[in-house]
Amino acid sequence: MATVVRTCVEPALPCPKKRRLESEDGEKPRPWRIRLGERAKGIRNPIREIMDTIAGKENPAKPLVSLAQGDPSCYPHLRPSSEMVASLSHAVTSGLNNGYQPSQGSARCRAQLAAFFNAPSRPTLQPKDIFMTLGCSEALSHCIGALAAPGSNLLLPRPGFPLYQVLCDYHGVEVRYYDLLPNSGWQCDIGAIAKLADENTCGLLINNPSNPCGTVFSREHLVEVLDKATELRLPVIADEVYAGMGFARPYVSCASASAKVPILSVCALSKRWLAPGWRIGWVTVYDADGAFAEAGVPETLLKMCQVSLGPSAPLQAAIPEILTSVPDGCPWHRDVLAALEASARCCVRRCRATKGLEVAAEPEGSMYLMVRIQPGVLDVEDDVQFAGKLLEEESVAVLPGQCFLAPGFFRVVFAAPVEVLEDAWDRIEEFCRRHVRVKASPGPGPCAAPPEEVA
Amino acid sequence: MATVVRTCVEPALPCPKKRRLESEDGEKPRPWRIRLGERAKGIRNPIREIMDTIAGKENPAKPLVSLAQGDPSCYPHLRPSSEMVASLSHAVTSGLNNGYQPSQGSARCRAQLAAFFNAPSRPTLQPKDIFMTLGCSEALSHCIGALAAPGSNLLLPRPGFPLYQVLCDYHGVEVRYYDLLPNSGWQCDIGAIAKLADENTCGLLINNPSNPCGTVFSREHLVEVLDKATELRLPVIADEVYAGMGFARPYVSCASASAKVPILSVCALSKRWLAPGWRIGWVTVYDADGAFAEAGVPETLLKMCQVSLGPSAPLQAAIPEILTSVPDGCPWHRDVLAALEASARCCVRRCRATKGLEVAAEPEGSMYLMVRIQPGVLDVEDDVQFAGKLLEEESVAVLPGQCFLAPGFFRVVFAAPVEVLEDAWDRIEEFCRRHVRVKASPGPGPCAAPPEEVA
Repeated sequence: MATVVRTCVEPALPCPKKRRLESEDGEKPRPWRIRLGERAKGIRNPIREIMDTIAGKENPAKPLVSLAQGDPSCYPHLRPSSEMVASLSHAVTSGLNNGYQPSQGSARCRAQLAAFFNAPSRPTLQPKDIFMTLGCSEALSHCIGALAAPGSNLLLPRPGFPLYQVLCDYHGVEVRYYDLLPNSGWQCDIGAIAKLADENTCGLLINNPSNPCGTVFSREHLVEVLDKATELRLPVIADEVYAGMGFARPYVSCASASAKVPILSVCALSKRWLAPGWRIGWVTVYDADGAFAEAGVPETLLKMCQVSLGPSAPLQAAIPEILTSVPDGCPWHRDVLAALEASARCCVRRCRATKGLEVAAEPEGSMYLMVRIQPGVLDVEDDVQFAGKLLEEESVAVLPGQCFLAPGFFRVVFAAPVEVLEDAWDRIEEFCRRHVRVKASPGPGPCAAPPEEVA
Repeated sequence: MATVVRTCVEPALPCPKKRRLESEDGEKPRPWRIRLGERAKGIRNPIREIMDTIAGKENPAKPLVSLAQGDPSCYPHLRPSSEMVASLSHAVTSGLNNGYQPSQGSARCRAQLAAFFNAPSRPTLQPKDIFMTLGCSEALSHCIGALAAPGSNLLLPRPGFPLYQVLCDYHGVEVRYYDLLPNSGWQCDIGAIAKLADENTCGLLINNPSNPCGTVFSREHLVEVLDKATELRLPVIADEVYAGMGFARPYVSCASASAKVPILSVCALSKRWLAPGWRIGWVTVYDADGAFAEAGVPETLLKMCQVSLGPSAPLQAAIPEILTSVPDGCPWHRDVLAALEASARCCVRRCRATKGLEVAAEPEGSMYLMVRIQPGVLDVEDDVQFAGKLLEEESVAVLPGQCFLAPGFFRVVFAAPVEVLEDAWDRIEEFCRRHVRVKASPGPGPCAAPPEEVA
């Protein structure tokens, strides 16, 4: 009674041979010959590859200081608040949160997120507009997967978080980069957006506050970018995982800067709430002109949620108390921002005092500083060699700019306390002093390129 | 400085037109025209669709009893042990588990899982052989995605868990079904496996203990199936999420039944540990002849983990204590199995006493009973109508067999306590009595089909 049900088949294949048995013709045992899925095989996440293999490459004589991973919770001065921890602990011990949740997430959790992320200039956000996900990574994947029509392309910021490209590759979306301009405070090159967009462009990805640039866009700049998106009829994917993390400038969400453009905003407890390991995030659908609804975007997001079944139930149960216990501007939140600002200032000051390095633009938020390696000053070939040697010699880990498509830069995570950063910068300064070229003439390679060609 | 970086492009497209601006030619505002990703749009998870929409369809005069969802934690008699809860609560409050984990999972967690799932006849399982995932759903997705070479097909059991087909469709793998035989205790039709396999078959999926059949395969049957897989050189994906849940027969893992076949086994805390909402699972790679290693399967699984970044850190931290605190045969585990067995017996007894229904094979484990609707006895068209009317009239929710490709059956989840099941079966019995055909002649539709054609 065996029946062949064919689904999802490529153009009709010639009927393949019945599978051979190993002993049919007295040969030696047939090999297994396992083949791999193309999409899975093609995944390449440069940050995770580096982070998963960094151990053991440092100088064994010096303790490792990692300014590489975008994890705000590595040092004890930045921790989820005691209220957050108590809420989650209560959700675990209550005995009420062991079962499956609705695929889109628990109604109570989504109601509280809808209230928290409501944008006054838009129609009131409803629980149905929120889709719970396994951290911001899955939220991004759902958004890109939902808009990944055949032949489509997506506009991504450069420098930018490399997962965007990983997910575009995975979902079969062509990638086009618009530049963030280092000499204009890493603002978006709006002219480039207009030039890159064509009839197959499925969206514009905006990341604010920025990883890796540390920028927080002004309302004016954000309005300009979103006006262009409206004009071009480009839906926006807003990576707002650093929402609420502006210290030098207040953070403005895309949804509150423009009511005219349909936006899929992604966020998580990972950054502002200092709990990346908890793996809980969400997509917020801010529709405009009913464009997402008409196209079926919410239903498609729900389908994607129906495959993975959403984040951990105790975490979903804890979200309402978490959101209300540490609102924007509460003492805990103010302390977090003050600590980040102090760390950012330390990095900027130390970088400016280090021969061979310079700050392209002072960070305004998130937890990242992009440092430019001045062309021709140091005897390193490029940013990858810089990061490798710095780790080997000084046990300081930073990520080379090439991870973010910004050759000639490296990224510093300033989520460490000032005393740790002072120690790290002592070592970076010493490293640079040791590596100043004897004859400081511009050489070849990305570190020698004029800044205009770098970003 | 806008640059187009093309990746992952389909065969060179004609250069599409630059995107039009809305106001260019004085037309009324241009519509948004958002298109959807084909794969995302195509997702259809029948169980989740039903579970997400079941609310409100019951008879308002009777309280709802759901025997529909495979959630063992819905009733208070089956709960994670107090030790499990304490371990997780401690992991939350310790302050040590807020950060990102290695993509593959924390080393300590994987070491304990490797020890727990070691199969003595095989090389000792190592931490590197374990990949942590977001529940068993993601574990299955990673396995199918890893083996989804272009043009490949996968052999799935029928009746079977519908997520297998969802994931095959998503990853572009053709589906071929081998039958489980209701009149042989839902054993695998091994002859069908040999007939279905061809040179493009990428694996054989074995689900034991079975959802929806409630079967626990004997070691002898499992050896026969795995010998056939070895002979055909078919790697095995073993869905062993119901591991440790055999009450009428001891559970034997695929890895311990045969040392010759490469196996990707998936499991989670969802069933045996009664915590499906915690969303933590894993893939265990049991290689043979180095076949998986040679093909790059472990690296590919790692790449997939590098996209979603694994399950919640506090849960990973709690796994070692969870595994050691409630080992197989401990009082808590014995109580769980005893409760399931009592519930299974209640269902079998009541089903046999109900006119129009029959038990194809008594459950031996997991938490499912497949009930056959006797052809021609009741005035219902098919299993879908049966389940719909039963909900509307008696507020008892069961899933129609068609969800599992078993028309003419319905699935009962017996994770409720006996008193709840007695009440549910009172209503089912009353329902059937009311729906006995006046003239009990076989009619059309699946419920009228002879049993041999049903499974």
